[in-house]
Amino acid sequence: MSLPLGATIGILGGGQLGRMLALAAARLGFKTHVYCPDPESPAFEVTPHRTIAAYDDEAALAGFAAAVDVVTYEFENVPARTATFLAALKPLHPDARALAVSQDRLAEKTFIAGLGVPVAPHRAIHAAADLAPALADLGTPAILKTTRLGYDGKGQRRVASLAEAEQAFADLRPHPLVLEAFVPFVREISIIAARGADGSIVTFEPAENVHRDGILHTSTVPAAISGATADAAREHAGRIAAALDYVGVLGIEFFALADGNLMVNEIAPRVHNSGHWTEAVCVTDQFEQHIRAIAGWPLGDPARLADVVMENLIGDEIAVVPGGPGPGVRPHAYGKAESRPGRKMGHLNRIDVKKPRF
Amino acid sequence: MSLPLGATIGILGGGQLGRMLALAAARLGFKTHVYCPDPESPAFEVTPHRTIAAYDDEAALAGFAAAVDVVTYEFENVPARTATFLAALKPLHPDARALAVSQDRLAEKTFIAGLGVPVAPHRAIHAAADLAPALADLGTPAILKTTRLGYDGKGQRRVASLAEAEQAFADLRPHPLVLEAFVPFVREISIIAARGADGSIVTFEPAENVHRDGILHTSTVPAAISGATADAAREHAGRIAAALDYVGVLGIEFFALADGNLMVNEIAPRVHNSGHWTEAVCVTDQFEQHIRAIAGWPLGDPARLADVVMENLIGDEIAVVPGGPGPGVRPHAYGKAESRPGRKMGHLNRIDVKKPRF
Repeated sequence: MSLPLGATIGILGGGQLGRMLALAAARLGFKTHVYCPDPESPAFEVTPHRTIAAYDDEAALAGFAAAVDVVTYEFENVPARTATFLAALKPLHPDARALAVSQDRLAEKTFIAGLGVPVAPHRAIHAAADLAPALADLGTPAILKTTRLGYDGKGQRRVASLAEAEQAFADLRPHPLVLEAFVPFVREISIIAARGADGSIVTFEPAENVHRDGILHTSTVPAAISGATADAAREHAGRIAAALDYVGVLGIEFFALADGNLMVNEIAPRVHNSGHWTEAVCVTDQFEQHIRAIAGWPLGDPARLADVVMENLIGDEIAVVPGGPGPGVRPHAYGKAESRPGRKMGHLNRIDVKKPRF
Repeated sequence: MSLPLGATIGILGGGQLGRMLALAAARLGFKTHVYCPDPESPAFEVTPHRTIAAYDDEAALAGFAAAVDVVTYEFENVPARTATFLAALKPLHPDARALAVSQDRLAEKTFIAGLGVPVAPHRAIHAAADLAPALADLGTPAILKTTRLGYDGKGQRRVASLAEAEQAFADLRPHPLVLEAFVPFVREISIIAARGADGSIVTFEPAENVHRDGILHTSTVPAAISGATADAAREHAGRIAAALDYVGVLGIEFFALADGNLMVNEIAPRVHNSGHWTEAVCVTDQFEQHIRAIAGWPLGDPARLADVVMENLIGDEIAVVPGGPGPGVRPHAYGKAESRPGRKMGHLNRIDVKKPRF
């Protein structure tokens, strides 16, 4: 299937990622239709076609499916029933399996480890009684996490003792949980990979990520890693995408260890915050790449033109955008009406215009 | 006046330039409202806010003005009455004077020459009797042009004799006309300049343009001109923008002569086809720059990251977009439903990823 110019891309989710996907789709000559329960969704401002309805509203989903040629999404927590319902009516990319694997930390880790790609040592925690043996195996500190619905540092707790783990177990919902060994990483990196409908895989260069309060703060490219480590990240990403028979862009976060080895932290079956740098300095950015993949078009060139640091603008930090951007700075504001603490409002790309890539 | 995030930009005209302005405004966190008589306008696909009405529909114009915070346009042939009507209700950038000057070739040439900026020798042709003395002054061949409503090579005729000139005078409408000397240019270049509300002026690098059948075919950056010629283009652009007390982006086309001197061919009080390369390789592109200017924001950095050739896709040439873009190629399709001969359907930017700017 290769979508013709003028076809309509259906997007589940109306946040900034859906908005940026819609903008990229427009540049390629597609129409877009955004489905989101929130009438204030920022993505509604960049297309005239919208459905405001709950994700379990089957009449609304059917109408949405009838109005579009392909369905994609901006968030991995699309309910399984929603995905199944839509996939029966129109192509859904990435597919329900990619969602199922990435919605559950335990299933994700099992899947990835099964491919021979390293993940952090971990144990499933179904009951409080599982904590003691798991802590004995993994040591302390360790991280207790919900298997589902965690994001931006939510749904996880660092624990240094059995008592802390038991308290965290009592606090965290929903169960089951997963206990992960503390990984003594020297840096966090991520890679944005795309797999086309023809099975071709294109990866962007790895980014080095710094988090602040559990939320991505900066992504720097190039990352301070060796060529061998970068190659390993690309190889791991390609293996995961191929094993999922994936179509679209996925983001993979890694812990980089002192010896240069990598462990997968988590995967996201979608465009990713740590890939926002691509819009400023790449021939093809992650949003266009995703649209190309789900449209059945050949993937684009991920070549990078300059060094760059992407910086998230959280809450009131968005106030910098109307001011003087300064040399090399390219701002992006998401059009969110209300600024709240911890809310992603926009980002800056700081481009090193004096330091070419080639 | 500095527009806050979330304000609404009103855009007259729903073609590809309006569409690209709306996409750029969205990236800066603005809403957009597009006004166009054509219900099939491509810009309607990138915003939920539209007015479909004639440009002389004062009730519709009043409603539009009430819905927006600032008004701009994508084409220089906005009727003077429309501009005056809107400007009384909301800020209009660029203003009515910029429109008046650029809508009339004769007024434009007189204005530019009055600034000491060279233009091609020319004579006003009000009646057929004006042709013989004008041809005697300017020599042959010469170009007879309508003073109003010309674009993409329409409304002009090359004439080699008085008889041809008289025939062209009889054919071309509306009168009056202007006869221009044939300029023995070695290349055509253009420059995209921006002037902020604070009077600051930022220019992009000059592009070298090749036309085909009267329509822009390619814009190449850098142009094969000397640094002195590039500086002269910037200087001329700045002088014109300042004299107009201009706010926004304007495009200026020049003839470059064998001795390196420049003559202004024409100016456009808007983003310009020969500036589409900026979206692929500049920190700030011409569309964002225009939005920044009319929003009263500081202008952005026009730095260029790589060499580039922009190629227009006319008519069925748009069919290349869904195929493999190839290394360094960044396509843009305008979402026009119908491909017609001579119609601008999209463009490609061919980026020289191996040849850095710095």
